[in-house]
Amino acid sequence: MRPDVGVIGGMGPDAAILFLHTLTGMTKVASDQDHLDVELLQHCSIPDRTAYILDHTQPNPVVPILDDVRELNRRQVQVIAIPCNTAHFFFDEISAASEAPVLNMIDLTAAHVAELVPPGSSVGVLGTRGTISSGLYQHALEAVGLHALNPSEAVQHDVDTLIFDQVKANQPLDRDLYMSVLERTMQAGAQIALIGCTELSVPEHAFAHDYASVDALDVLARATIVRAGGTLKL
Amino acid sequence: MRPDVGVIGGMGPDAAILFLHTLTGMTKVASDQDHLDVELLQHCSIPDRTAYILDHTQPNPVVPILDDVRELNRRQVQVIAIPCNTAHFFFDEISAASEAPVLNMIDLTAAHVAELVPPGSSVGVLGTRGTISSGLYQHALEAVGLHALNPSEAVQHDVDTLIFDQVKANQPLDRDLYMSVLERTMQAGAQIALIGCTELSVPEHAFAHDYASVDALDVLARATIVRAGGTLKL
Repeated sequence: MRPDVGVIGGMGPDAAILFLHTLTGMTKVASDQDHLDVELLQHCSIPDRTAYILDHTQPNPVVPILDDVRELNRRQVQVIAIPCNTAHFFFDEISAASEAPVLNMIDLTAAHVAELVPPGSSVGVLGTRGTISSGLYQHALEAVGLHALNPSEAVQHDVDTLIFDQVKANQPLDRDLYMSVLERTMQAGAQIALIGCTELSVPEHAFAHDYASVDALDVLARATIVRAGGTLKL
Repeated sequence: MRPDVGVIGGMGPDAAILFLHTLTGMTKVASDQDHLDVELLQHCSIPDRTAYILDHTQPNPVVPILDDVRELNRRQVQVIAIPCNTAHFFFDEISAASEAPVLNMIDLTAAHVAELVPPGSSVGVLGTRGTISSGLYQHALEAVGLHALNPSEAVQHDVDTLIFDQVKANQPLDRDLYMSVLERTMQAGAQIALIGCTELSVPEHAFAHDYASVDALDVLARATIVRAGGTLKL
């Protein structure tokens, strides 16, 4: 059996599960058999990405990620998706190691945001300190004529709490804290909030709100379905 | 990397995703790295189980399932979980083909129900026509001193609607229909409803209710965590 999609997950597990849930929910089907065949490598033991990006003496997560890339290629998947924004710090290395195309969630999301707001708009990027400090979205947004607005230290602190102390720690999600993060991002001048961490996609999917936002996880799910030959449920 | 758990999913995809969600939600963790390493083979193209059980001229789903068993053994998973009750029709064949232990959701669930209700109780089994007609739960419940109460034709018709026309077809779930199925199961004399189809686990998890019920998917998730060396969040 040649699977349509390979997913490198576990970074963290809830994010990968939400990605699969979004993928199946966005696929037009009448029965099980119309869904894409997916293989998920949910290796939660992959070392923390942010810890390594901020301190290169920490264990390097790209080592097990490259093992997973080779495994999915051995299984002859048609396309690889990695529902972890921070892991895209290693994108060039990952892509070079893969025969199957690897979708770039960062570039796909920047291109999608450029369809939603006027050129020159400020985009409030919300993500881990690893994603922010590496300038992943800053570079991608500049390339499409947009301006990345990084979080203040106070907002980043609350983003860290949501990501590490709530989603990754299997604790209840604080709706008010998430709304406050979005509110302060807009107050700082963002025309739109970019949910640039798949852990933040968890509260983003759980809580309805009226802030303008785009979720990188949703962009990746849509792109995955189209590239793997599935039909989008529009 | 030797994964802790191998999951044969895709039967259907939403059920396997709910199983992974339940597995991570029930695991006691402080960070990603405390979670179990899981590999999910989400092969939605596996032929329909009920269709084969009711008519052996239909494509046999055990052929691709056994491929998945061999693949998970090649990857040296420590334990295999199959979050599809109907697929347990093939349990002996699957188990014989595997070096890694395969958890038996049917037997585990029957044993768990026996801890909850007095000996001789009537258990309302809700599942596909494949599960019901093969007597999977009937045999397992009798072995632990309980009586299986099969659905009436009218209830089975509505169960089919929930499973095939709603969950498997990616359509909205009818809460009233699910409540009516539970209500009629109790009225027929059940002391407890056994949610014996992981597609029915989707409304069971989505809608709060006061009927006495036990969900086979939850039983399998708990057993998987314990057998794979994880810590239950109690």
